[in-house]
Amino acid sequence: MSTEHRLERLFNPKTMAVVGISLKGKDPASGWAAGGGQYIREYQRLGYEGHIYPIHLTATDDILGLKPYKSLLDVPEPIDFCVICVPPKAVPDVLEDCAKAGVKFAHIFSAGFSETGEPEGIELEKKVAEIAKKGNIGVVGPNCNGLAYVPSAKISMWPILPPRSGPVAYLSQSGVNCFQFITYGLGQGLLFSKVVSYGNAAVLDATDYLDYYAQDPETKVICAYIEGVKDGKRFTQLVKETNKKKPVVIWKGGVTSVGARAASSHTGALAGSEEVWDAFFKQTGAIRVSSLEELADVAMTLLYLKPRPRGNRVGVMLGGGGYSVQTADLCTKEGLELPIFSEETQKELKSFIAVTGAGFKNPLDSEPMAEHSEQIFGAIKTLSADPSIDTVIMSTELGFLRGAEKVKELTENLTQFAQDNPYKKPIAAIMDSAMARGDEMKEAVSALKKALPRAAVPLYRTMARLVRAVAKVTEYYRFCAEAKEE
Amino acid sequence: MSTEHRLERLFNPKTMAVVGISLKGKDPASGWAAGGGQYIREYQRLGYEGHIYPIHLTATDDILGLKPYKSLLDVPEPIDFCVICVPPKAVPDVLEDCAKAGVKFAHIFSAGFSETGEPEGIELEKKVAEIAKKGNIGVVGPNCNGLAYVPSAKISMWPILPPRSGPVAYLSQSGVNCFQFITYGLGQGLLFSKVVSYGNAAVLDATDYLDYYAQDPETKVICAYIEGVKDGKRFTQLVKETNKKKPVVIWKGGVTSVGARAASSHTGALAGSEEVWDAFFKQTGAIRVSSLEELADVAMTLLYLKPRPRGNRVGVMLGGGGYSVQTADLCTKEGLELPIFSEETQKELKSFIAVTGAGFKNPLDSEPMAEHSEQIFGAIKTLSADPSIDTVIMSTELGFLRGAEKVKELTENLTQFAQDNPYKKPIAAIMDSAMARGDEMKEAVSALKKALPRAAVPLYRTMARLVRAVAKVTEYYRFCAEAKEE
Repeated sequence: MSTEHRLERLFNPKTMAVVGISLKGKDPASGWAAGGGQYIREYQRLGYEGHIYPIHLTATDDILGLKPYKSLLDVPEPIDFCVICVPPKAVPDVLEDCAKAGVKFAHIFSAGFSETGEPEGIELEKKVAEIAKKGNIGVVGPNCNGLAYVPSAKISMWPILPPRSGPVAYLSQSGVNCFQFITYGLGQGLLFSKVVSYGNAAVLDATDYLDYYAQDPETKVICAYIEGVKDGKRFTQLVKETNKKKPVVIWKGGVTSVGARAASSHTGALAGSEEVWDAFFKQTGAIRVSSLEELADVAMTLLYLKPRPRGNRVGVMLGGGGYSVQTADLCTKEGLELPIFSEETQKELKSFIAVTGAGFKNPLDSEPMAEHSEQIFGAIKTLSADPSIDTVIMSTELGFLRGAEKVKELTENLTQFAQDNPYKKPIAAIMDSAMARGDEMKEAVSALKKALPRAAVPLYRTMARLVRAVAKVTEYYRFCAEAKEE
Repeated sequence: MSTEHRLERLFNPKTMAVVGISLKGKDPASGWAAGGGQYIREYQRLGYEGHIYPIHLTATDDILGLKPYKSLLDVPEPIDFCVICVPPKAVPDVLEDCAKAGVKFAHIFSAGFSETGEPEGIELEKKVAEIAKKGNIGVVGPNCNGLAYVPSAKISMWPILPPRSGPVAYLSQSGVNCFQFITYGLGQGLLFSKVVSYGNAAVLDATDYLDYYAQDPETKVICAYIEGVKDGKRFTQLVKETNKKKPVVIWKGGVTSVGARAASSHTGALAGSEEVWDAFFKQTGAIRVSSLEELADVAMTLLYLKPRPRGNRVGVMLGGGGYSVQTADLCTKEGLELPIFSEETQKELKSFIAVTGAGFKNPLDSEPMAEHSEQIFGAIKTLSADPSIDTVIMSTELGFLRGAEKVKELTENLTQFAQDNPYKKPIAAIMDSAMARGDEMKEAVSALKKALPRAAVPLYRTMARLVRAVAKVTEYYRFCAEAKEE
């Protein structure tokens, strides 16, 4: 018999209660009912299958189709999860009721606690923590969106998110940031397992969510937006352990003094000094990012770039000398090396490509072969075979290929090659298509863009983003390999 | 009578000749004729109205609808511009013919010169320079795409570019980079005046093109991709002077040793040390960028962000505490200050916005007002009025507004306000719309996204990109103001 993780019922609640529902002033038809009502409405929308119990002292009619109860204590079954949307001063009383009713987890949506910086709010948060501890309630928040998105449990805070589950878990001290990362990530081909917005972290902190994600079989990559952690030592230890098994990608907010000021008034977090966090990343090997784009690019690279790069030596092929120079600059700045191709590789390339100039060294200038899918494919194979290369980076304009058939041919060859992978080298690619004209061509391009990531060839929007993500992920695997050896 | 700039006929040629046309092996129907043929085809495509003379020793039939001539000397009128696509060794002879025929400008497409690193190629390039000097021919290249895009002269190297002209000029040592910047820039709302790909710069160098753009009335912003310059002193002096009148944005390629290696085999450029270029940027105040995105974002900001920021103090409003923290970090790192709003501003904001917590300091957490266009607009006005703020940065999710009417209301209010501009403060914005549902809503969003940049409120894709561009442009104006005072 397997033991259930102590947060299992939080991410997979069988029953819910919602306290703090306003019945007036909002138009339920718009889908934006106030306070607790919006949680009921949104959780219903993705088809949450457990029971939801609205708690309301005076309501007699159904609330959003559900029978209201006057008190948590009246609910006829055990409650796994309670959403609390009452004014901050009323929170302790509701939480006391939760304790009495045996509620396992509570999400405090309400703001007005330590993030205010006021003694009253700080005191109130302490009280919440005490009641939670005494009553053994796992509290999410306060001051947050709670269970933002858990597709497997059919839970979603926002109406536009898809029901399909995936490998990316996210824990974030910001609710808006959850929404931004999910919508941006979906656009980049990411799917999510669990997303929690956990605000001030009065009770459950980053460490707790991370501990759950670390053992969650659905989760393959753990992403986090963190402003501060309460127990730095425990957190560092856990990230260090987890990161060896599942990559942990962290965006640390509040790294500047002005950012730290904002963090303090956002989640009451003590942001910690830049030095402390530098040391943390060095020690744990967690991947550090500092924007939405980077977070999504790194997660995508971890998921799709296969097999793992065995080192930081890249073989680059792309169209144009300037593009070669710019990419060489980018790679070098991010810690990727461009060794000059072996004599054998250069000879092999020259046997089927008519390059003038010296575009054979690395990068390979593939502009002259942009029309010929068999040459592009041949060059990828040749670069993969070079023993001085760990990862192949390529960029081409598909619109230069002479017809949709040629795009299809490249798609087939490349997916087959990436799957067979005779040289065990990953390929990261940019497939531009600004020049692709005609419906047939556009369809072929679109099919290629779907097929390649599935065949472990991730696609990127720009070279700067590709290089940054590949460099970070390469460094991550180096760290893991070194940690194993020790 | 105004004197014509010495490069005027290069960018506005009345007659052209093309040497080096291959008649076999390619399918003219595909639009990708080989060698010189592609120039004729592409220049015809955008509707070039001058005469084009194909030069071919043996052709008797028309070439792409044009009568062929056996020699440049047979052409019945003076030639402004000659495209040369013959093998490198044949270039000197063609150039001698150009001199004899009195050709004013020649573009050498052919590669195989100093960029090969071979003594033969280096010698050949010297010879080209000598003939050009003796014959008084302004040579573009060798090893480049030449006149890539000049919409006002109806010239375009690529079939997908629009005939409409605009304020951005570009000079680039890379042809592919020209294509990438134009297509990327068009997607970001940029329009172009002149784009030249100038390769090895054997005769005409960055300094010459810059000198032309500086006086070109169509050009408002000058962008450049440069690997090396021949006459550093003259170039520095010219950038310094030009930059005071028209902003000069430079992407320097070959800043790392590996990038410099690639630059040397791309254009034969001596990339120069990082220190030399650091000093150059410091001295000239040219805006330094290092990617396609940055180049486009900075150009857009220079064109649309009006009036000029008077200082680096920004007032930020956006939805969500985490987003506030992240943006405060970004701004601080890029040199923008976030002063705490004045007491008056805070009081004013509190009079119409229900914010809990301490989201009134800067950034202003506008999440609670995301549904209310009048509150968003009110906050923008209030922040603009604060004397401690130079620029307003805002971000909101339009999908939260309650209906298309509200989006339209915001559009009208904001465009009117930006045009009246009572406080003379620029506004930079992110208008997300992931949550916008329904055709009417989407139409209103799309109208807003068109109207705002026209009303001097540039829109950005992500906060990282907004902050970087606004910071660079703010620093540029500071530099100009200081230079004026001296």
